[in-house]
Amino acid sequence: MKIAIVGSGAIGLYYGARLQRIGEQVHFLMRGDLQTAQQSGVRVLTPEEDFTLHPVKAHDSTQDIGICDLVIVALKATSNTLLGELLPPLIGEGTSILTLQNGLGSDRSLAELFPENKVCSGLCFVCLNRIAPAVVQNFMLGSVSIGPYGETPLAEAEKLTSLFTSAGVKTRCEKDLQLVQWKKLVWNVPFNGLTIAAGGVTTDAIVNSPELLAEARGLMEEVIAGAAAIGMTIDRSFIDRQIQQTIPMQAYKPSSVIDFLEGRRVEVEAIWGEPLRQAKAADASMPKLEMLYALLKQLCSK
Amino acid sequence: MKIAIVGSGAIGLYYGARLQRIGEQVHFLMRGDLQTAQQSGVRVLTPEEDFTLHPVKAHDSTQDIGICDLVIVALKATSNTLLGELLPPLIGEGTSILTLQNGLGSDRSLAELFPENKVCSGLCFVCLNRIAPAVVQNFMLGSVSIGPYGETPLAEAEKLTSLFTSAGVKTRCEKDLQLVQWKKLVWNVPFNGLTIAAGGVTTDAIVNSPELLAEARGLMEEVIAGAAAIGMTIDRSFIDRQIQQTIPMQAYKPSSVIDFLEGRRVEVEAIWGEPLRQAKAADASMPKLEMLYALLKQLCSK
Repeated sequence: MKIAIVGSGAIGLYYGARLQRIGEQVHFLMRGDLQTAQQSGVRVLTPEEDFTLHPVKAHDSTQDIGICDLVIVALKATSNTLLGELLPPLIGEGTSILTLQNGLGSDRSLAELFPENKVCSGLCFVCLNRIAPAVVQNFMLGSVSIGPYGETPLAEAEKLTSLFTSAGVKTRCEKDLQLVQWKKLVWNVPFNGLTIAAGGVTTDAIVNSPELLAEARGLMEEVIAGAAAIGMTIDRSFIDRQIQQTIPMQAYKPSSVIDFLEGRRVEVEAIWGEPLRQAKAADASMPKLEMLYALLKQLCSK
Repeated sequence: MKIAIVGSGAIGLYYGARLQRIGEQVHFLMRGDLQTAQQSGVRVLTPEEDFTLHPVKAHDSTQDIGICDLVIVALKATSNTLLGELLPPLIGEGTSILTLQNGLGSDRSLAELFPENKVCSGLCFVCLNRIAPAVVQNFMLGSVSIGPYGETPLAEAEKLTSLFTSAGVKTRCEKDLQLVQWKKLVWNVPFNGLTIAAGGVTTDAIVNSPELLAEARGLMEEVIAGAAAIGMTIDRSFIDRQIQQTIPMQAYKPSSVIDFLEGRRVEVEAIWGEPLRQAKAADASMPKLEMLYALLKQLCSK
């Protein structure tokens, strides 16, 4: 199977390497890491092993790659404006597309750009860091959830789930991936957002402030009410479980805060803007999320 | 009349100097500016004149001052925890107390500390800067509104209004000063608050962002609803007028943002915490102010 990995950050490098390792023909689209990958391949460190794939097919243009069977989009969602320009050379009649991006909206953008193609959406529950050019470290094997978007049949998500499973990735097929996305937002919206808006702090600063913890709960309630307005049920007991899981994280920096503090672009639209717009379109009231989104948009514009 | 000025920042220096100039016996409580004031007096610059009062009675302890006829409290509200320790040497049976502090709560604290004394509250609409030790510059003559707190009779506020008027200060007596305080909060809550929370920006950043301007309006609506829950009517047309007045300010830095950016304490409780508590106690819903307060409390704690 010919597979393109569009965006070779931690996620792209890791799953691309896993797929090449089981014999798939993987093409990495790269910018900064291109030379290193061409010269030394891609290296993967996990709690269980340390392997290097060499040679790898690394490219700086999708035209060099050509039409693929599967295109995996692993760009930061802030680069989605580039998709219409980057992807067409990769997409043929039978090309299947899988996005492994944060937040909401990427799957819809892809389906709008390529209405004739099958589009699936995946969520990665994993702890990955690109620790050097073309070197990715996995701290926790984690899992991936894959589901079909829009008109795409469930069978397509099942096929991709099998592919990822055979590549050694714990993967579940989800009929309703949108629900999984919103459940992930129940944590990401308050904790990625408040840690930035409170000045670039760690999660313990939220948990240890009665006022900020109350705001985290309030935001979680808004996200659950937003999901409900769209037609998805998340039980409110989920809130307490999420907070209980956050306490032992101690001084944890969510990925968005790291981006913020290091001056990189933050996925403001995917994580806050798009959920807010979807929920408000369904008449949900989101006063706290509106405030957080407005502040984050300003704070992350610099 | 023997008058103590407790807190000799810009406000204390300016009104104290005006009162001494018309022959009142004014005692300034000072810390950092004490030596300068003792050696060179207090200097006042206004658009109309430049005058120096020398000598002035400058003290570093209220015990040195003793019982006064009038005590004017011009400390930052963040120092109100010191009132119970600072004021007693100044307060006799007939001592009248006037607070000229920002936000809500100072008048109540004073009335609780000295339940037998008359307490009035004043709001200064003025542009003052302490530009050097014991030197204050007034950029716009402005005005003061004075009203009675709690059981204090209106006549007391009228007396103080006459005193300030005779000292050359445009002063109005307000029967319902609480309403004036809340009207001032309609602007201060969003503009002092969002400029800090959005990263220490100027008011034009709020006015020019559709999302932040919508949040400013939302906060103003909450403040007006909070005032209504407590029993005060502020017409919603006030919101548009406040925003229209903010546009020509351009890149203006509210005083709280200056405090924030220069690492000084911000009056978080007086401007956001106390209005929030009062409005919530009256069952008003304030989701946006809750969020802003929680963020400001964290941001300004550093």
